[in-house]
Amino acid sequence: MSDVFHIELKVRDYECDMQGVVNNANYQHYLEHARHEYLPLLGLDFARLTAEGVILVVKRIELDYHFPLRSGDSFTVSCRPERISPLRFGFHQQIHRLADNKLIVDARVVATAINRQGRPFLPPEIDKAFA
Amino acid sequence: MSDVFHIELKVRDYECDMQGVVNNANYQHYLEHARHEYLPLLGLDFARLTAEGVILVVKRIELDYHFPLRSGDSFTVSCRPERISPLRFGFHQQIHRLADNKLIVDARVVATAINRQGRPFLPPEIDKAFA
Amino acid sequence: MSDVFHIELKVRDYECDMQGVVNNANYQHYLEHARHEYLPLLGLDFARLTAEGVILVVKRIELDYHFPLRSGDSFTVSCRPERISPLRFGFHQQIHRLADNKLIVDARVVATAINRQGRPFLPPEIDKAFA
Amino acid sequence: MSDVFHIELKVRDYECDMQGVVNNANYQHYLEHARHEYLPLLGLDFARLTAEGVILVVKRIELDYHFPLRSGDSFTVSCRPERISPLRFGFHQQIHRLADNKLIVDARVVATAINRQGRPFLPPEIDKAFA
Repeated sequence: MSDVFHIELKVRDYECDMQGVVNNANYQHYLEHARHEYLPLLGLDFARLTAEGVILVVKRIELDYHFPLRSGDSFTVSCRPERISPLRFGFHQQIHRLADNKLIVDARVVATAINRQGRPFLPPEIDKAFA
Repeated sequence: MSDVFHIELKVRDYECDMQGVVNNANYQHYLEHARHEYLPLLGLDFARLTAEGVILVVKRIELDYHFPLRSGDSFTVSCRPERISPLRFGFHQQIHRLADNKLIVDARVVATAINRQGRPFLPPEIDKAFA
Repeated sequence: MSDVFHIELKVRDYECDMQGVVNNANYQHYLEHARHEYLPLLGLDFARLTAEGVILVVKRIELDYHFPLRSGDSFTVSCRPERISPLRFGFHQQIHRLADNKLIVDARVVATAINRQGRPFLPPEIDKAFA
Repeated sequence: MSDVFHIELKVRDYECDMQGVVNNANYQHYLEHARHEYLPLLGLDFARLTAEGVILVVKRIELDYHFPLRSGDSFTVSCRPERISPLRFGFHQQIHRLADNKLIVDARVVATAINRQGRPFLPPEIDKAFA
């Protein structure tokens, strides 16, 4: 597990919908935030890359919803990098409820990067980070 | 195409992130909204079912991101019902940019329903709607 | 009423929180979307201005919440332009439930524009639009 | 300052819009989250009150936007309780950037509580908390 990055968050009530649980789309927000917090540790800066015209693009997400988070729940979001192909990299991510380590969401994210011309382009620092 | 339900929406600027495109999680909002608009046509009322203790639950989503929506874009969100198993139903959903019918997102959603005890339970009206 | 711009929207279920009503912050989204839809009619393009380094900035918002919107409600968002000072312009905005014209939110928005150096700067087209 | 409650948060990139700064409505989310984190310290449980039919309702918000938060910024959200009238209570809230204590947003929130019949009703624990 030493190669897995984690962040710890707490449910905000506005993220819950009228079913009283976190709305499905918000888990994607949690996953994205964990990835963006992880990128600097890989030597990557999302905001700087964006400003430089290198757009990190998610191509595919698979989300398995195992159990819902509720108001007051704290949870962890993990991020395990995966190299998928010469032009694609990805992450295996999981969300666990902190109190009992219950699996909440299991996700696979496939990403690439494109340049200002919209062409796939993996900058050397991404190529190296996902070697 | 006669069995496919569509809604038409327009990008709201707050849905765009600093890359200038709609943030990935918001597509999931669009897809959910289309499903909830579709449910009444199937004889189902999401808010009423929730109040009655029948919780519709998304178990899995697969999203393929083909092209991003931007500020000002209008788009359609489609919804094609699919029966997956005795206790599971689903939707094949697509988002197209209205101006040129370009495919934006292609998604498959697998859902079930649970009762107040958290047990999978497909009410007769859902069973019938996804026959 | 001829000088008031309106848009018509419908509540999306993910905008409702566990109280079963639209979450307070989402009304601010509705108001912003109405303003951004209105700007082109005043000859202003929010995305283009942003790209050109002219940042429209909200300085103050006052929101009076009169009655909540719920799942399924359709509503209008109005936008009445107001000139406040040489460097400030604003909007009086109201949200009404469509079914019975009930007042939902009454809001006043004060805005300005700043240039790339962060200095208040009202481009001629804004000055003219809010004359 | 001893009577002021604070929470510390960090900007999530999806909260930023195409101007590269946190979207205005998201500050309201931050303020709400701080209030909800504060309520238990006052002996109040938002989710439980909601379940019991006591709905805490924001009647008015005034937000002064002083300076925007950006990607990567950490910040504090404060919460100072204020009693406004027999049936109304409120909060003076401020958001400061953590790095330099710069004031970002200054807000006043006026709230009340209503019962299942929609009548204003301040439960004894709220009355006491805002004595």
